Amino acid sequence: MSAMKIIEKIKADGGEIKSFKSYTGGLIAPQSNDNPWGYKFTWNPRNVILAGQSTAKFIEHGTFKYIPYQRLFSDIEKIKVNDVIYDGYANRDSLSYIKQYGLEGIPTMIRGTLRNQGFCAAWNIFVQLGLTDDTYLIDAPVPLSYRTFLSGFLRHVSINYIEEALKQFINRYTNDESVFEKIISTGITSNEIVPITNVSPAVILQQLLEKKWALQPLDLDQIVMSHIFVYNDIKGKKHQLTSNLIVTGEDASYTAMAKTVGLPLAIAVKNILNGAIKLKGVVIPNHVSVYDHTLKELEKYGITFNDSGGII
Amino acid sequence: MSAMKIIEKIKADGGEIKSFKSYTGGLIAPQSNDNPWGYKFTWNPRNVILAGQSTAKFIEHGTFKYIPYQRLFSDIEKIKVNDVIYDGYANRDSLSYIKQYGLEGIPTMIRGTLRNQGFCAAWNIFVQLGLTDDTYLIDAPVPLSYRTFLSGFLRHVSINYIEEALKQFINRYTNDESVFEKIISTGITSNEIVPITNVSPAVILQQLLEKKWALQPLDLDQIVMSHIFVYNDIKGKKHQLTSNLIVTGEDASYTAMAKTVGLPLAIAVKNILNGAIKLKGVVIPNHVSVYDHTLKELEKYGITFNDSGGII
Repeated sequence: MSAMKIIEKIKADGGEIKSFKSYTGGLIAPQSNDNPWGYKFTWNPRNVILAGQSTAKFIEHGTFKYIPYQRLFSDIEKIKVNDVIYDGYANRDSLSYIKQYGLEGIPTMIRGTLRNQGFCAAWNIFVQLGLTDDTYLIDAPVPLSYRTFLSGFLRHVSINYIEEALKQFINRYTNDESVFEKIISTGITSNEIVPITNVSPAVILQQLLEKKWALQPLDLDQIVMSHIFVYNDIKGKKHQLTSNLIVTGEDASYTAMAKTVGLPLAIAVKNILNGAIKLKGVVIPNHVSVYDHTLKELEKYGITFNDSGGII
Repeated sequence: MSAMKIIEKIKADGGEIKSFKSYTGGLIAPQSNDNPWGYKFTWNPRNVILAGQSTAKFIEHGTFKYIPYQRLFSDIEKIKVNDVIYDGYANRDSLSYIKQYGLEGIPTMIRGTLRNQGFCAAWNIFVQLGLTDDTYLIDAPVPLSYRTFLSGFLRHVSINYIEEALKQFINRYTNDESVFEKIISTGITSNEIVPITNVSPAVILQQLLEKKWALQPLDLDQIVMSHIFVYNDIKGKKHQLTSNLIVTGEDASYTAMAKTVGLPLAIAVKNILNGAIKLKGVVIPNHVSVYDHTLKELEKYGITFNDSGGII
């Protein structure tokens, strides 16, 4: 079931929702996962590079929580979906969704983004170096190699010993030994010349990663979504209910991302035209007349939720 | 000698300046240093709280360096002035001063801020927690205690075990055991109610610190400035020349900060009125007609540089 349907059902049955965690990732499918990061771009690359630069806000056991950008990719949760463990980082302002879901007073509510395991520890290194900064222009002399560009973010280092300095830098933040390999695999230590000038560090990083993390024509992407509810039923018994959605793309054009973003919109347009949706003005899709038809029709395209859970 | 005079003299003697490091701190004098941070406000508190939130830029051994805010208070230099060792952190855009000092092509140029030793490691904890963030408003339910406010920046922690969680958090960034005491001394773990609502984390922190770090009527502040030059003379011999300025205040009104900021301005105004400064328009004080008279007159007020150095 979708999150809205689950919430309505628990409430109708007299239950009380204690926790709602909702994590989604636009990922590469396991069969096409062939780079050290376990990631290829299926979403606007610029938004991926700049992701999370505003403070993440959510509520956990009744306390409002704030995670600043500098901790977003280290203060993560491990989220298990169909026996695969993913990294989950908090996604912007979860608090603003409490009212939209009708969950006023809920003690724990967090929305987050999934990445394949190990991605966040490595991405955190780019964040800590300062390579995702989009607020100023790099004015170092040109031609500038990626190696010299990187050395600008490491103090007291000779250009000949960047790899050693990078290893030491990584050790400040993680003991995950695969992080070094991930960073090196991007080409950030190469002597190749940065082909764009007078841009921000984030733009230089994006341009580099777009080459390495491009979806190839036959690559399959994958959307993984997991809604995890904890609630007390009318008798006070505690339940966990998990609703997972996994959609795999067909190729680099008919991606799971394109289907899950585009089809609901197309179905909604059809339903406005045929009169099934009668709402006027700018509305979000949390009204039953929008999501009920849409979810049913999405099932024809293989976009379905699988629920599991029980008393805990 | 002042930095401008030193630069002119080295150039006039045919020398080549290889490195110019200029660090200044508005500090508390040793005799009034009676809190764990070794700091009291002698400058706009808001600017102290928000210090360094733009990326620091400088040049080191010929490489343009960029230190993002998340590393500013950990990637510091230890600067020795008159046998006292200070923390030195990089101050905004040092690159823009290269031309103003006439130092085009210099391999190392950095301007920075001095704090008493240990300040930066502790301040870094506030930065990493997210307490210096001024970009959003805290919307947690009121009344809000400082303890609950702080717990909002630590994940998976019960309000009863904040101190233990804080210790663990600090250990992620430093092994300096005095940091914990510094943080606790601010009152950030107290059950006292935050007296202001609908403000940013930075404003809450500022309001708390203004109480703890207020200059008392008889407190003496101290300005510490150190210019450190490395240059090759005309025969190719390498020299270091250090020029230090230390000014101690008289009390909480006649501070060293007020004197070193206010007197040069007053003297310049007088010199414009009496015709000694003939420059027109908006000018910076790097012209000999501005700084020569001013520096001489400042000596009457005990504002003098002490030079030392030699072949290295």
